[in-house]
Amino acid sequence: MEKVLRDPIHSYIYIQHQVILDLINTREFQRLRRIRQLGTSNITFHGAEHSRFTHSVGVYEITRQICDIFQRNYPTKTVNDGLWDDKERLVALCAALLHDIGHGPYSHTFEHIFHTDHENLTVQILTSPETEVNQVLRRVGADFPQKVASVIQKTYPNPQVVQMISSQIDADRMDYLLRDSYYTGTNYGTFDLKRILRVMRPYKNGITFHISGMHAVEDYIVSRFQMYQQVYFHPVSRSMEVILSHLLKRARFLYDHHEQEAIGNPVLLLPFLKKSFTIADYLKLDDGVLNTYFIQWCDSSDQILNDLAKRFLNRKPLKSVSYSAQTKKLLPKLRKLVSEAGYNEEYYTATNNSYDLPYDTIVPDGQKKADQIELMRDDGSLVELSAVSRLVNSITGKFSGDERFFFPKEMLSSNEEPEVFTPIYQKFQKYLKNRWVVDPKNN
Amino acid sequence: MEKVLRDPIHSYIYIQHQVILDLINTREFQRLRRIRQLGTSNITFHGAEHSRFTHSVGVYEITRQICDIFQRNYPTKTVNDGLWDDKERLVALCAALLHDIGHGPYSHTFEHIFHTDHENLTVQILTSPETEVNQVLRRVGADFPQKVASVIQKTYPNPQVVQMISSQIDADRMDYLLRDSYYTGTNYGTFDLKRILRVMRPYKNGITFHISGMHAVEDYIVSRFQMYQQVYFHPVSRSMEVILSHLLKRARFLYDHHEQEAIGNPVLLLPFLKKSFTIADYLKLDDGVLNTYFIQWCDSSDQILNDLAKRFLNRKPLKSVSYSAQTKKLLPKLRKLVSEAGYNEEYYTATNNSYDLPYDTIVPDGQKKADQIELMRDDGSLVELSAVSRLVNSITGKFSGDERFFFPKEMLSSNEEPEVFTPIYQKFQKYLKNRWVVDPKNN
Amino acid sequence: MEKVLRDPIHSYIYIQHQVILDLINTREFQRLRRIRQLGTSNITFHGAEHSRFTHSVGVYEITRQICDIFQRNYPTKTVNDGLWDDKERLVALCAALLHDIGHGPYSHTFEHIFHTDHENLTVQILTSPETEVNQVLRRVGADFPQKVASVIQKTYPNPQVVQMISSQIDADRMDYLLRDSYYTGTNYGTFDLKRILRVMRPYKNGITFHISGMHAVEDYIVSRFQMYQQVYFHPVSRSMEVILSHLLKRARFLYDHHEQEAIGNPVLLLPFLKKSFTIADYLKLDDGVLNTYFIQWCDSSDQILNDLAKRFLNRKPLKSVSYSAQTKKLLPKLRKLVSEAGYNEEYYTATNNSYDLPYDTIVPDGQKKADQIELMRDDGSLVELSAVSRLVNSITGKFSGDERFFFPKEMLSSNEEPEVFTPIYQKFQKYLKNRWVVDPKNN
Amino acid sequence: MEKVLRDPIHSYIYIQHQVILDLINTREFQRLRRIRQLGTSNITFHGAEHSRFTHSVGVYEITRQICDIFQRNYPTKTVNDGLWDDKERLVALCAALLHDIGHGPYSHTFEHIFHTDHENLTVQILTSPETEVNQVLRRVGADFPQKVASVIQKTYPNPQVVQMISSQIDADRMDYLLRDSYYTGTNYGTFDLKRILRVMRPYKNGITFHISGMHAVEDYIVSRFQMYQQVYFHPVSRSMEVILSHLLKRARFLYDHHEQEAIGNPVLLLPFLKKSFTIADYLKLDDGVLNTYFIQWCDSSDQILNDLAKRFLNRKPLKSVSYSAQTKKLLPKLRKLVSEAGYNEEYYTATNNSYDLPYDTIVPDGQKKADQIELMRDDGSLVELSAVSRLVNSITGKFSGDERFFFPKEMLSSNEEPEVFTPIYQKFQKYLKNRWVVDPKNN
Repeated sequence: MEKVLRDPIHSYIYIQHQVILDLINTREFQRLRRIRQLGTSNITFHGAEHSRFTHSVGVYEITRQICDIFQRNYPTKTVNDGLWDDKERLVALCAALLHDIGHGPYSHTFEHIFHTDHENLTVQILTSPETEVNQVLRRVGADFPQKVASVIQKTYPNPQVVQMISSQIDADRMDYLLRDSYYTGTNYGTFDLKRILRVMRPYKNGITFHISGMHAVEDYIVSRFQMYQQVYFHPVSRSMEVILSHLLKRARFLYDHHEQEAIGNPVLLLPFLKKSFTIADYLKLDDGVLNTYFIQWCDSSDQILNDLAKRFLNRKPLKSVSYSAQTKKLLPKLRKLVSEAGYNEEYYTATNNSYDLPYDTIVPDGQKKADQIELMRDDGSLVELSAVSRLVNSITGKFSGDERFFFPKEMLSSNEEPEVFTPIYQKFQKYLKNRWVVDPKNN
Repeated sequence: MEKVLRDPIHSYIYIQHQVILDLINTREFQRLRRIRQLGTSNITFHGAEHSRFTHSVGVYEITRQICDIFQRNYPTKTVNDGLWDDKERLVALCAALLHDIGHGPYSHTFEHIFHTDHENLTVQILTSPETEVNQVLRRVGADFPQKVASVIQKTYPNPQVVQMISSQIDADRMDYLLRDSYYTGTNYGTFDLKRILRVMRPYKNGITFHISGMHAVEDYIVSRFQMYQQVYFHPVSRSMEVILSHLLKRARFLYDHHEQEAIGNPVLLLPFLKKSFTIADYLKLDDGVLNTYFIQWCDSSDQILNDLAKRFLNRKPLKSVSYSAQTKKLLPKLRKLVSEAGYNEEYYTATNNSYDLPYDTIVPDGQKKADQIELMRDDGSLVELSAVSRLVNSITGKFSGDERFFFPKEMLSSNEEPEVFTPIYQKFQKYLKNRWVVDPKNN
Repeated sequence: MEKVLRDPIHSYIYIQHQVILDLINTREFQRLRRIRQLGTSNITFHGAEHSRFTHSVGVYEITRQICDIFQRNYPTKTVNDGLWDDKERLVALCAALLHDIGHGPYSHTFEHIFHTDHENLTVQILTSPETEVNQVLRRVGADFPQKVASVIQKTYPNPQVVQMISSQIDADRMDYLLRDSYYTGTNYGTFDLKRILRVMRPYKNGITFHISGMHAVEDYIVSRFQMYQQVYFHPVSRSMEVILSHLLKRARFLYDHHEQEAIGNPVLLLPFLKKSFTIADYLKLDDGVLNTYFIQWCDSSDQILNDLAKRFLNRKPLKSVSYSAQTKKLLPKLRKLVSEAGYNEEYYTATNNSYDLPYDTIVPDGQKKADQIELMRDDGSLVELSAVSRLVNSITGKFSGDERFFFPKEMLSSNEEPEVFTPIYQKFQKYLKNRWVVDPKNN
Repeated sequence: MEKVLRDPIHSYIYIQHQVILDLINTREFQRLRRIRQLGTSNITFHGAEHSRFTHSVGVYEITRQICDIFQRNYPTKTVNDGLWDDKERLVALCAALLHDIGHGPYSHTFEHIFHTDHENLTVQILTSPETEVNQVLRRVGADFPQKVASVIQKTYPNPQVVQMISSQIDADRMDYLLRDSYYTGTNYGTFDLKRILRVMRPYKNGITFHISGMHAVEDYIVSRFQMYQQVYFHPVSRSMEVILSHLLKRARFLYDHHEQEAIGNPVLLLPFLKKSFTIADYLKLDDGVLNTYFIQWCDSSDQILNDLAKRFLNRKPLKSVSYSAQTKKLLPKLRKLVSEAGYNEEYYTATNNSYDLPYDTIVPDGQKKADQIELMRDDGSLVELSAVSRLVNSITGKFSGDERFFFPKEMLSSNEEPEVFTPIYQKFQKYLKNRWVVDPKNN
């Protein structure tokens, strides 16, 4: 059997095992069609409406291509020769396909409010006998679900398999950079996938790259850096996540304070408000379920729930400015002004520091080396990427991302529209310059 | 002011009027982000998860480009000279942006079951004082909402404006072919937009194309034909629409027969089950709302509702075969076998004849000329497209699409898995050959 | 060994045999870098400056991919089972790579004037012991050069190998459509190569396509038709070929009439003027060699040679109009007017009927079936493409292309610039309307 | 009048002035069709066969787009307000179109051997009354040729015009990065042209970019860096330039030593060998002319000329290794071994240090600030790019490129093929490791 799925990034996804086809056809996997890959990013880049389903089959396909190349060019001949054992193919493919199966709607924000954990849930979905995914995996072997889970948990003994799915330059990251670039319509995330696959090779500690492909790897790291700067950390998308977070927090607050009338009867969300949910409950959630309750909340008697729901659904982002270590101390004054202008500061202001470590060779505590990219020379010796790439070195081990303060757009009203809050607005605006918080005394 | 939206098809959408920006920011327009452009097509082409929002801004952008070219190259000089009057720009842009504002979730299927009418709803959304869209349009002029509506209704006096938005080769069709090609990852729908815009020109009866661009127009018609054949009429997507239609029909049946417990409390759908809804009710619907009720119905006590909901959500399409005028008479026998195999034939079989008229110069009743594409020669004389294009002529006025019979996949079980229904399955399969219905006597 | 060449069409060309690498490195093959694939087309589509070298490696790569797919999915098991015998791979790859090795500069025009024959020359280059190509091929086997030649001559016994390289839908045509589209910057020639390769399969009489890919094959035929109409038959490019042809004819005339001074000493062209050349002579020619003599001829004492050389090098095309069977009889009058305006009609007018048979199932004499595309149904039965595709049927067996009359642009001078020839120009122009020849009496 | 040229990079080149059309039709400009943009790069990236003609019209088109945006968004209102005066458009467009008109075949190498100077020749072609270009320019105004020349010489008073054509981020560089990426089939050179054009704006000292587009500008700088590393400095292409340089040097040597028989009668090259040429002589040269003489030299009695010509035409590159400041002192030993192996070391070895300064803010002598990229904040203040981009800062003012030693491939012969020179080869190879020169004592 060989089936194909048409895909805009890889042209075709080639399915060559019945178990892969059956996994795709499970209800847990089909549910990923109803969860957008990029959460609120489509608010800024309207084309980015693709789901975790499309990304998951893409990660599978890249992994399949890596296995093909490894098997063609680097097949193992003797035990522990550091080459590729194609018996690992199926576990690698399943882990690639299912690595995101535990994600729920608006994943990071939802987790933060309801204390769910998508990695733990992934393992449960793989290993609980009640799921269709588990039933399909068990057909391969009784311990196969646990093997696949251990790849995702990075405890699987073969580091080549683990690094295919999860490392600085893995099938997951490679697919999402290309896919998110394509759907957003930006080209920052593009890099030369074919060339990277060509120079990739297995060795005893995992996966390395021939040094002749250094510039292709460098380009990938730079592309990843730029996608974070330009797309994933976009202030408007982050602002919508702030609103979403506050909206869910408000719902939880109302539930905890027995304001049931205000939140109606959000049947599928109740287990999470009650802090007691099963996997089955979790698997009923998707973006549309949450949005359905938000639509209902637009008619809520609670003014904050009502207003935040409308802001989220109808795209009324908060505004934001950057602040530095020096100007951070001014934020309480800004919050106070927002409060004086009539907004509950808990729900209408926020700080948010989206950080990304673009390429890291040293873990923060300095004790052991993190995941790093090794290049292989002709004679088999290795060299770490940032040692030979000036560009990568410039962003190695350095946090990127900016700290921002969020507040209602109304605070920026110009004085041409005189109203009762105008003096407060004017005072607030003295703290802002060139999209940064500044001290008005120095301004 | 000039704002831009990043778009994968047109690079940027240029917004040059405050009224356009304000229309995009209305709740009615933002709602289009939650309604997929292609309904169930993403079941077959998984990349096609884009919304009516992205298409609508694309239609706006193409219209804006047409206005720019017309204004640059063909500005009117005297009344009725058949050239372009740029005072028409704003009404054209608003009509382009809003032409799909009345669409709801899974539009064609929903309309069919609940007797809503998206064109009528579009006009209501434009002209009802309660909508934000109407409020924005009224700022231009008291009669402006009605003017925009009349363009969409094709009653607006200037045929150039009407044909920009709605004709054989309009901004709507041009955007969706390019966009659906991009998101599905097929290239059948691509054509040379820039060249078509270059040869497009206004004349007194609407819009024509210089004959030097004949092949670009021909290519557009052929691309449209191929997208219908390959994407829009794909049997698997149609099969999912069959399931959706039967699922909604079953819900309506249960409601009409007071089986409320079986359908739960689908709050936002109730006005439609009750056959009494307002515009406000309609504007609360989106794909996610319907899916939320389908998720709940997976636990319904009604076995048909329960099963169809699962088939729809978890992608279990019906199978289908083509039939001809000759073999149509065999369908009752096939339905009977499906019924004998334990399926309610009303909900588990269907026929479906998706037809498209690829390019039509003659209306069926032969009384008056339909919308046709005119090419202009150097001396200003006109010639109809199919008169000069052999390819277009071959598909002019001919119905394309095939008539299919849908049935449960289980009917195709092979006899290697003996079970009680095996003889019925075998009998059923004798009617099928090369994906067509055949008479077993001649087989 | 596996080497790759970066290619804009196929991303990479994979070279997996030493003999292929060695063939690419022969002087005869490297020479193809200096011969443009599209002759004079870059005069109209300036991007189309690619050489026969890039096309040849592309044809090789598509053939390699076909072999891979055939070997993976349809390997032969028993003699004469109609499946693929991978022992044919090397002869197929060599024939693909070398199919154009006999082409010279401005091939069709040069052949026409100097009576060379690129197919015959291809065979000679493959089989003459003096060439490097022959020396590389002989390393495979003494009869291998002849085997490769027989594939190109279509006399090789295995029809699968012959049809890969030369049939209605072969690696040659598939590469040039994609490549010429890419380099011209048009998209008319694009089609879904991956899908066609997926549905392609060997059978006893050659190569067929599964019927599920009918629309992809149809799209390829339509694309080919459109590339001919839009690019290959472009009137301006054809006009430059007319000039080139007349320029070479004039040089031959001057040589034959012993006007050596007028043509200087075009060393590398002399064997052809003398009508006595060796393969070695032929292999010294390329576009640059001819252009070098044209540059020298710009200073020739012969006014016609001098003027035509300048027109060719400096892009001064003749103008052209279409004529019909009815208006063909008017051409002598037009020629006479051109002559009266001071131009030698032999060198300054021409007719040219570029014809293409887009897809042909019947040979003209009706005696035997030509090369046709067969589609295979699920049960193994075959159906000819135009029997199931309305689009293909519309262009089957019909000649496309138009008959044109070429003349100096000066004949179109408008009467605002009065000069001695103005009355002649005016008379000439009465025969033209909407880019066609017309009878002034009916105009 | 508006004419278009189809272009693969910009879709269309829009020609809106008769003078631009006339310049394109001059013999000097048409000659650029016969000179490849990338010299010998097509030896490595076979797709890169495009000419200086296609690049020149591309630079024109980007300049035209910049003028359009400046005129639409930043038209001057008062003298010296730092905004755009559209009266500058024509001089900018002509300078953009003609900036490379003085290039000859294999420009840098030819200049180096024959002491021509393409910038000086550009000015002469613009200002000498004998050229068609000059005649067209003079129709605009008597001083117009000189004005256009002064833009190219950077002495034109308006810095906006100068910087459009020649600065760190100008129309020239932007076109060649995109075009060379497209034709090589690499994607390293791609960047977001549309976004850069959107954030570009005139100011009193030239051209700046709004800071919101910082990442797009950063991406451009990184792309340029990567194209140099990956494409322009590719060792194999540089090796072919070494051969070309030695070939021309040998011809000059033979001419100077009166070995006329060995070099034949290369008519069009003689003025350069004689060190006395006119513009007319220069304008007769193109790639094909040089190649024609190389073809003739393959039969030369001089063995070095003969061999180098064959190596150049038939792609037999020298091999190369990198060396460092430490290992540079070993090169004489390597040269000596090459000599002992029978090669004239003057013609068969070389060192070559292709350097690029990716983005430079300080000129080497430290006396004045070089061309730097300024970003504009909301309040109009400026900040230099490398001050806000960590990536750009990492490559600012630093030389990139590597120093290489070139030698005949035969020196790498393995000892499996015993022959007389084997011991020399083995000794040579001890100096090489991982593609670098090393000291055998430490190896």
